[in-house]
Amino acid sequence: MKKLAIIAAVTSLLAACAPSQESQKGALDTIFSRKSVRSYTQEPVSAEQTEILLKAAMSAPTGMNVQPWRFIVVTEPEVKEALAGPRGKMIKNAPLVVVVCGETTFSRKDRETGEEVSMDNPNWTADCAAATENLLLAAEALGLGAVWTACYPYPERMSQTISALGIPDGVTPYCIVPVGHPDSDNQPKDKWKPENIHYNKW
Amino acid sequence: MKKLAIIAAVTSLLAACAPSQESQKGALDTIFSRKSVRSYTQEPVSAEQTEILLKAAMSAPTGMNVQPWRFIVVTEPEVKEALAGPRGKMIKNAPLVVVVCGETTFSRKDRETGEEVSMDNPNWTADCAAATENLLLAAEALGLGAVWTACYPYPERMSQTISALGIPDGVTPYCIVPVGHPDSDNQPKDKWKPENIHYNKW
Repeated sequence: MKKLAIIAAVTSLLAACAPSQESQKGALDTIFSRKSVRSYTQEPVSAEQTEILLKAAMSAPTGMNVQPWRFIVVTEPEVKEALAGPRGKMIKNAPLVVVVCGETTFSRKDRETGEEVSMDNPNWTADCAAATENLLLAAEALGLGAVWTACYPYPERMSQTISALGIPDGVTPYCIVPVGHPDSDNQPKDKWKPENIHYNKW
Repeated sequence: MKKLAIIAAVTSLLAACAPSQESQKGALDTIFSRKSVRSYTQEPVSAEQTEILLKAAMSAPTGMNVQPWRFIVVTEPEVKEALAGPRGKMIKNAPLVVVVCGETTFSRKDRETGEEVSMDNPNWTADCAAATENLLLAAEALGLGAVWTACYPYPERMSQTISALGIPDGVTPYCIVPVGHPDSDNQPKDKWKPENIHYNKW
């Protein structure tokens, strides 16, 4: 009986110590181990995972709290095909493709007249970039792989994306992010260069 | 003896299970809890913390692996003063200010002639933005607070920053990030909006 009690105690202790479903990859580890993943298995990205990726993206900082980001979640093969164009393969083969877009203007009440006025948003690309980086890091944290493929400011890529997805005026496609389960072992690049740092003055 | 052996085994098991010094805030928690922190205690940011922030920044994705980011680490009060200008207070009061800059051109060997040619880098702002977001997340992970204050594309802010720091031609200041220990409890904004998501077509 005593022995059994000890075994039970040690077993429950071990269970308590085992990484729970809630356990997460550390933030710094995730930042340092994120890498561009360009080929994927056929396993789908779940709806829950997709929601986490988009929640991460919408948690990014945004100038004047405009939140100009818009997301198009592409899973249908024919849409991926239309989107892929010359950069084809990784977009066609990814189970999930997220197109990050931005509204380039926003409206605010004019302080003097009280009327709604539309103005250019100087921060829309910065906000979309921060949202994209959050999405990439969330993918890494979930054990997924993803890659940032630029759309803006390349005129041909933008017009192709606009027509493939029916993006309306006033919205610009910023980048295309294929996401999936990595089909091989990818290692992050070491980009640490102390010579990129200046102290107090250039 | 048997009892002692059991106690020793359980003790070492517990030690192995205890969160180590290496334990980190989870990546997703960090992304979801990052917020703009604009006021700080006088406690300095250590050299080790500063290095982690810059390592995180340089772990960002970068188009064509150009790595156009450059960082100016400002801690001297008179340099902060010169940098602060009208947006003053949070830059003057932060123990650490990181100015993220980008080289706007890069050089590559011409495939036909073999000569080094300089060309515009269409991705320099995207790369600087991703580096900045990594830096902000690393600050959150370390229990620090930071805020992204835009410099690019505002002409006055850029020229003031260039003259305060002696930034050379060909390098553009992208944003200024004050960093410190938060002096109050800051909460992240909830920016989750399912209406920002479209499926397969806009």
